[in-house]
Amino acid sequence: MSVITLTTDFGQDNWFVGTMKGVIKNINPDAEIVDITHGVRPHSITEAAFILANSYGYFPSGTIHTVVVDPGVGSGRHAIVAKGPRFSFVAPDNGVLSYALDREGIEKVVKIQTEKYLLLPISATFHGRDVFAPVSAYLSLGIEPEEFGPPLEKIVRLNPSVPEKMGDREVVGHVVCVDPFGNLITNVTRAYMEELFHLSKARRVRLLIRDWEIHRVCQTYADGKENELIALIGSSGHLEISVNRGRASDVLGMREGGKFILKVL
Amino acid sequence: MSVITLTTDFGQDNWFVGTMKGVIKNINPDAEIVDITHGVRPHSITEAAFILANSYGYFPSGTIHTVVVDPGVGSGRHAIVAKGPRFSFVAPDNGVLSYALDREGIEKVVKIQTEKYLLLPISATFHGRDVFAPVSAYLSLGIEPEEFGPPLEKIVRLNPSVPEKMGDREVVGHVVCVDPFGNLITNVTRAYMEELFHLSKARRVRLLIRDWEIHRVCQTYADGKENELIALIGSSGHLEISVNRGRASDVLGMREGGKFILKVL
Amino acid sequence: MSVITLTTDFGQDNWFVGTMKGVIKNINPDAEIVDITHGVRPHSITEAAFILANSYGYFPSGTIHTVVVDPGVGSGRHAIVAKGPRFSFVAPDNGVLSYALDREGIEKVVKIQTEKYLLLPISATFHGRDVFAPVSAYLSLGIEPEEFGPPLEKIVRLNPSVPEKMGDREVVGHVVCVDPFGNLITNVTRAYMEELFHLSKARRVRLLIRDWEIHRVCQTYADGKENELIALIGSSGHLEISVNRGRASDVLGMREGGKFILKVL
Repeated sequence: MSVITLTTDFGQDNWFVGTMKGVIKNINPDAEIVDITHGVRPHSITEAAFILANSYGYFPSGTIHTVVVDPGVGSGRHAIVAKGPRFSFVAPDNGVLSYALDREGIEKVVKIQTEKYLLLPISATFHGRDVFAPVSAYLSLGIEPEEFGPPLEKIVRLNPSVPEKMGDREVVGHVVCVDPFGNLITNVTRAYMEELFHLSKARRVRLLIRDWEIHRVCQTYADGKENELIALIGSSGHLEISVNRGRASDVLGMREGGKFILKVL
Repeated sequence: MSVITLTTDFGQDNWFVGTMKGVIKNINPDAEIVDITHGVRPHSITEAAFILANSYGYFPSGTIHTVVVDPGVGSGRHAIVAKGPRFSFVAPDNGVLSYALDREGIEKVVKIQTEKYLLLPISATFHGRDVFAPVSAYLSLGIEPEEFGPPLEKIVRLNPSVPEKMGDREVVGHVVCVDPFGNLITNVTRAYMEELFHLSKARRVRLLIRDWEIHRVCQTYADGKENELIALIGSSGHLEISVNRGRASDVLGMREGGKFILKVL
Repeated sequence: MSVITLTTDFGQDNWFVGTMKGVIKNINPDAEIVDITHGVRPHSITEAAFILANSYGYFPSGTIHTVVVDPGVGSGRHAIVAKGPRFSFVAPDNGVLSYALDREGIEKVVKIQTEKYLLLPISATFHGRDVFAPVSAYLSLGIEPEEFGPPLEKIVRLNPSVPEKMGDREVVGHVVCVDPFGNLITNVTRAYMEELFHLSKARRVRLLIRDWEIHRVCQTYADGKENELIALIGSSGHLEISVNRGRASDVLGMREGGKFILKVL
């Protein structure tokens, strides 16, 4: 049995995702489909890349991760199958696999072309149904990546989302996403903070965000007092800005892209 | 293994859909349940009918499509099982299967009555749980449609959603649904346009919508310039009004039911 | 094959739920995961408890119900496995299982401690992934509850949500939740009403809510006239306040917690 995960910006209030699942089950009735999310902000390649990187590694080895966030659908962009040591990925070649492949590594990439594995005639606007779903299903049946098309030397990669350095002891970070509890997840990782701390040989920070200052990195949400704005390293290894039982995003009026200054003292 | 699909207006923020799935798995542990959507606008029979018609045919032959959009629950309306050549359908008899059955054809329809296949006592307000889920589950176990009740001669059918003709070269169409990208999906189909073009022996169109005019039918979203309002035939074979990487629904301030004029030149 | 249900306040627009499913499938590829909902209002333990109580009993015997609504994550609260006669439950010990266990009964409860069944190192903020998902998966493999940790004598229980008595013939009830159709589901149960009626030997009621009065308890939504505010016993056995094909919540401007007076005449 093979697991196929789906990550899209299709939402769940229409027939798009259900139709992809129908196509998959029609080709491989034994495929097990798991939704990662269909709530990626429309066309947000970086958000989808971040979501995939935070989740793909928890699935069983052999899982096929299919991502359809595809603002260039119907244009010249390629559709690809990328194979890593443990997982395969199916997606448009627009960078959406970048953060996952940065961690996982790539063994081979092919450009999807073989028509017998596609739903013909391919629509110009719904490759989720006509390209990505059937290719995922055939992959889950054991078809080798090279069957889908020729190797591709180079794929589109996003720049890693790193903070902007303002000196040895100061960086400008930004909010990558807001979780359902209003926690602001940032592009400052645990590893990045450790490097900063190492440089400065200090363990204290000052985080300036809007008109607020945060002076400590807590262990967990419950360490915060009521209405206190706190920072902590979240479960994905990223610095988060939070309010215990409150919503930091509301307190700060901040969303994706919002910036802050982090100083090491 | 049988696939049962679910299409409802229950939303996903409560226990309704999960409870239906529990009922199904309790009767047939091997049933595989796939959500088409639970985001049909509350009580919108036409939207559910449109969603089902766009998706049902992509599933494996033998799939049972269960639709619970049921404003008349607890009133005199019948609950039905309809069997076509490839698929079975379970739904209230309120027209919600119309567009799918228009395409698929019907071999037999029965009125659901046999109490041993229902969850007794049947609540007056949640037939999804007490009628449609158990009947779907027993169908997936191979129970024949006629076991559920007597044949029904005539079922409720929606009028086909066709544009209003204003002469040989002009029609008034309307928006059937807005997809998550703000594309306006209309009731003008590819077949309908070909018929119009045939009549006029022309290939050029003028589409008037609010204060905008559209002069060409593109192949894909990416053909549009920034902020350009375009028309194209979408993946379901319906004319769509779109903005490349923008939201036509926002640009036009238009939702379901919005009208436009389509002229063939 | 084992069913594991998930009830959380994680929403579906991020990687949280998908990651939990990945963890489960990685431990037990045969586990079948069914979502009850991920739309619990953030941190609302009482809403989650109500949703679980309304749905858990419809699943096959042996189902594992996993609930992650966990405002105290990372603090001292315990994580527990509770076993009833038909079902097992996995959740934080914060009362979220109360209403289900009130009905189901408990045979044993253990405090989750055994590290080999957890994802180490346990994050401070995402026990859904690191504790509740792996424990549910191992339970579904047949590991006995006592393997996860020592018995717990006493768990946190919510007070039953009962109306406030104002005399033999009058109570103050409140709205427990609003369903997607705008129906107000209240804390007055069928059993409670029967007790009231018994006491008063009457069958007529007067329900005062905002500036409205309701004089009858209908059988079903369709019994109401257009715009009429009606009361009925809904499918979960709770008194509901509804408008046929309308939204009582909008008509009354009322949400969870809204109060009303119920008099028996």
